[in-house]
Amino acid sequence: MSSTEPLRSTSPTGDVPPSFSLDQRTVDWVEHPSRPAVELIDQTALPDVERLLRLETVEDVVDAIQRLAVRGAPAIGVAGGLGVALAVRTLAEPGAAISALRDARPTAVNLARAVDRVAAFVHAGPDAVLAEALAIRDEEIASSDSMAAYGVDLFAEICGPQPRVLTHCNTGGLATVTGGTALGVVFALHRIGRLGGVVASETRPLLQGARLTTWELARAGVPFRLAVDGAGPYLIARGEIDAVIIGADRICANGDVVNKIGSYAHALGAARAGIPFIVVAPESTVDLATLSGADVEIEDRSDAEVVGFKSARSAPDGVTTANPAFDVTPSDLVTAVVTDRRVVRFAAGQTWDDVPLGPLRSFS
Amino acid sequence: MSSTEPLRSTSPTGDVPPSFSLDQRTVDWVEHPSRPAVELIDQTALPDVERLLRLETVEDVVDAIQRLAVRGAPAIGVAGGLGVALAVRTLAEPGAAISALRDARPTAVNLARAVDRVAAFVHAGPDAVLAEALAIRDEEIASSDSMAAYGVDLFAEICGPQPRVLTHCNTGGLATVTGGTALGVVFALHRIGRLGGVVASETRPLLQGARLTTWELARAGVPFRLAVDGAGPYLIARGEIDAVIIGADRICANGDVVNKIGSYAHALGAARAGIPFIVVAPESTVDLATLSGADVEIEDRSDAEVVGFKSARSAPDGVTTANPAFDVTPSDLVTAVVTDRRVVRFAAGQTWDDVPLGPLRSFS
Repeated sequence: MSSTEPLRSTSPTGDVPPSFSLDQRTVDWVEHPSRPAVELIDQTALPDVERLLRLETVEDVVDAIQRLAVRGAPAIGVAGGLGVALAVRTLAEPGAAISALRDARPTAVNLARAVDRVAAFVHAGPDAVLAEALAIRDEEIASSDSMAAYGVDLFAEICGPQPRVLTHCNTGGLATVTGGTALGVVFALHRIGRLGGVVASETRPLLQGARLTTWELARAGVPFRLAVDGAGPYLIARGEIDAVIIGADRICANGDVVNKIGSYAHALGAARAGIPFIVVAPESTVDLATLSGADVEIEDRSDAEVVGFKSARSAPDGVTTANPAFDVTPSDLVTAVVTDRRVVRFAAGQTWDDVPLGPLRSFS
Repeated sequence: MSSTEPLRSTSPTGDVPPSFSLDQRTVDWVEHPSRPAVELIDQTALPDVERLLRLETVEDVVDAIQRLAVRGAPAIGVAGGLGVALAVRTLAEPGAAISALRDARPTAVNLARAVDRVAAFVHAGPDAVLAEALAIRDEEIASSDSMAAYGVDLFAEICGPQPRVLTHCNTGGLATVTGGTALGVVFALHRIGRLGGVVASETRPLLQGARLTTWELARAGVPFRLAVDGAGPYLIARGEIDAVIIGADRICANGDVVNKIGSYAHALGAARAGIPFIVVAPESTVDLATLSGADVEIEDRSDAEVVGFKSARSAPDGVTTANPAFDVTPSDLVTAVVTDRRVVRFAAGQTWDDVPLGPLRSFS
């Protein structure tokens, strides 16, 4: 199938019959039926409804990113890059639309980086722009496969033969294009019979762990337990977890890891118990231009996210909240960062400069 | 009003018009209208519905404790003690009912301790049993007042003039009889103009912070922000919190604190940032017969609590969970335990033996 063919046929409403295939690209470019579009799995509807969104305007793409219909640093990078291609194809003056894409969310470095990279081809015409956007998509697919290879080797080295892992938020195919970052490594460990168990942290307020990670794990046949976020450090302390493995929205020059709110608490728990805290993210999430976590804009999101629990209310509407979407895990708590090109052990004192980029590898 | 008069008249359905008064006893003994009963505010209904439950059988009391209609270590101790009085008044052979009360929940020491203490008067007749149960109730009321006095002094000493505090779960009048443990100190700081702000941690899975603490804070006119549990350590790290203050379900001989799941993560965050982590609980929660947190039975509760919230579902029914209701904060992370009789600074190396019991004090 060529890169511009549809993922699958869609109904006029955008609904598709369940279920998506395991290797489905979760975000992609489509020409079908008559107009170009960005198509992606609606992550706000999962796990209750499996629905593919067809986004034919840049406004739709920006909205999908802002309301988290697509989330995960690599995935929103790909969506942003494809959004630029859509802007160039549909707008006479795409500049403002490209800026809106770049600014849709502030914290993950992948979005601004992908938008800038694709926008640099605007002068070369729509075909060149689309080619660059599709290159980013394909690179993220290859990155996931390579991270699985590097990650499995690291686990074999430092986590024992059958590690029981705890993961936070969602870092599977939904957060990338296929495969995943941290969850991609978990899937790989499962495939080779070296996974002792998974605890998925539910990830309030939007429950990406409870809704999305459990959906991906169940589809892949990986047994798991779901836990509230506050339980992680205690499950670690009482000896039920051998390693924590998470993704990242941005990794800074000094190794500080910006990731979903709640990650830092798990890092503190892992450090106290002396178990590895492993971060898996592609090089596209590494931001050497940002010195430390203190220099990253942390997105504060709405009160409604905290007060609401899907259709229910945890507190009366109108309650004021503190709702940072991300936190910063200082690099001294990060046992290792696994990228698609290398493994850097920050807690042991390594820096990026100590580990040159290696080859892209293949796990599958 | 004598101690056996009703809190207020109740309708046949147990519903009362809102709203409860600020100094309402949240659990109490009533003779009205014709039969003895334990009456308590239904904490499962708050904040949506303010309802008083009238419990006329021991089975009802056990059920109320198990489904958390009443929770909070001091409050379930009082409910258990009053339940023994109800058993003696309503049953020819109360032994089995008293055992059921004692075993209704395993982790908080107050329940078994109160049941045993009241049951020791069974041979002396119903009046003596009731007198002892009411004595426990009145002692907890006095304890709350004394903890506020000790707590305010400690805050003045180590937390600055206008501390911004983070608290977890619910530790107000609902968790005691009136006043509160940790939240009682927060109310006291507010009354004397020495409170810089409150962040209430929502406390998954049952959202006691979002539902009950925000209800109590709003009624008392204390401004607050609500946060997801995973945000606490990061809010501390970025300098928004000056002290963490929580209650306890059991405090062990070595100073380990058993409290609502998620407490330990906040303790780790406080220690990393170098801010005080303060535990407030009456001496009735101190269990010198239990050496450390490792010796405490931690209640594991149902999958349904994690998967569901009210009418919403975070994950499909049938998902397996890890759902410990409590965690253990090691004593080296506990800056101080404030009881109704003393302040013991465990992180600085103090033990119970270093601080003799002092007088009950009065804040109000």
